[in-house]
Amino acid sequence: MQKLSSVVFRIEALERVAIFGVGLIGGSFALALREAGFQGRILGVDTPETARRACDLGVIDEALAPQPAAQLADLVYLALPISGILEILPQLDRWVQADALITDAGSTKDAIVRRARESVARCQFLGGHPLAGRELRGVEAADPVLFRGRRYVLTPRTRAELDHPRAREFVGWIEKIGALPVILDAAEHDRIVAFTSHLPQLASSALASLLEGRTEAQSHVFGPALVDSTRLALSSFDIWGDILETNRGEIGAALETYIRTLQAFARVLELDPEGLREHFRKAAKFAGGLRDTT
Amino acid sequence: MQKLSSVVFRIEALERVAIFGVGLIGGSFALALREAGFQGRILGVDTPETARRACDLGVIDEALAPQPAAQLADLVYLALPISGILEILPQLDRWVQADALITDAGSTKDAIVRRARESVARCQFLGGHPLAGRELRGVEAADPVLFRGRRYVLTPRTRAELDHPRAREFVGWIEKIGALPVILDAAEHDRIVAFTSHLPQLASSALASLLEGRTEAQSHVFGPALVDSTRLALSSFDIWGDILETNRGEIGAALETYIRTLQAFARVLELDPEGLREHFRKAAKFAGGLRDTT
Repeated sequence: MQKLSSVVFRIEALERVAIFGVGLIGGSFALALREAGFQGRILGVDTPETARRACDLGVIDEALAPQPAAQLADLVYLALPISGILEILPQLDRWVQADALITDAGSTKDAIVRRARESVARCQFLGGHPLAGRELRGVEAADPVLFRGRRYVLTPRTRAELDHPRAREFVGWIEKIGALPVILDAAEHDRIVAFTSHLPQLASSALASLLEGRTEAQSHVFGPALVDSTRLALSSFDIWGDILETNRGEIGAALETYIRTLQAFARVLELDPEGLREHFRKAAKFAGGLRDTT
Repeated sequence: MQKLSSVVFRIEALERVAIFGVGLIGGSFALALREAGFQGRILGVDTPETARRACDLGVIDEALAPQPAAQLADLVYLALPISGILEILPQLDRWVQADALITDAGSTKDAIVRRARESVARCQFLGGHPLAGRELRGVEAADPVLFRGRRYVLTPRTRAELDHPRAREFVGWIEKIGALPVILDAAEHDRIVAFTSHLPQLASSALASLLEGRTEAQSHVFGPALVDSTRLALSSFDIWGDILETNRGEIGAALETYIRTLQAFARVLELDPEGLREHFRKAAKFAGGLRDTT
């Protein structure tokens, strides 16, 4: 059995990867694959301008249109905005090889996994979300070590899906690029990131949007803390609109929890600020623990 | 006149600075003064252990008890927690020279300026707040460039107070260490920092404290954003307790504004996430503008 499976593996080895969306994530995945020893061909699908830059920078080997890229690829890697992923999945199904794997890097998973279930029938689909990012965007910011040490969530419908040879190979590459695979149910993923990613974004955007135009903020009287606190507020709605749209229920619940916590803070502050000591202790414990695990 | 004033200046030149509290701020002020060419003696007042470390590190020239330090000093620089500043002001008044200047680096100003008005009669007092900081604390973290490019708020009771020779000299040193003096009314200062400093702190502490113990946060599924968003939550309540206590009214008002903004975000999210585009645009405008001015 062992021998047979290794023969099968060799026959199936990835030869062509098609990356749809050669921006920060797609470009970094291409560079990371190459650095991890991938010997095959990396095809890129993007606007003519971005595709040319990606070729010039050596991020991809060749720029192609969606259809030929999908037809040639053993692995289709969708690093598009969520709405782009939702849109292209039904088309991809008409073009892909039967033994190909389609995966994505979208920041929410439930809507994408549902769409894939409805529309991808001719090959396997495996949802993914690398918990990596930078303030910079675009292929110029692509970085072969972007995924190193980062969690990479995978959302198979069943655990057995991970045993398909193509899926096993893909998970192997995730490990080779230094990321840490985490298996989660898609809905559970969305509930988690509502708290750990989407809520921090809205907390920062709300802070920055309320300060915009206020006289207090025009005084230039602020320290490094405000610069830190508004870093996420620089993020583009072009990315966040899709995330908010496809995870609004969970994000709404997380926002409610945050508002209730702030209301409790306000009440304690009014009664006796010393009562906030325990909240600060819990907060510092969490923030410290986070740093120990990263 | 020009000549006379320059003679007066020479007679009055600072010879001995006493720094009460040789931690990050007090230690950095000492190092910055020295680097900016201060030729006089720097006395430090702190616990025996910290004072010895400050001497060993060359941050201060000599460790003294509060009374002799205050008696010898031309400039008394209070880099203590706010409660420590409030407590020591009445005692200092018994010890200081008549031509000395007492100043402080406390993060709130109204309570301190009121206390000084009641208790400091024998020499001049000028409230101050350098908008500088680091995650690290203690004299080991002291840095001669900590104040460079940072606003340094001064809260004289009247503009005329800044014309006293000692005050002029002190403001001259603030400029020489690279900080940018900003003159504000003490209550106005507190209203501003409630929004630009104290609210960001509570926003981060509330986020981290609600996540502590939640299963979502135990999954290790988070990206660099959460690490950024919880950096301030590492801050110690030993410092923040005093800030919250002495600025609770303004902080309460800022918290209310933040809660209302988040409630508006939640309503828009539920109706149509696209409605948040304008809020994100305002937030990014503010966050970008902040970075252009720092």
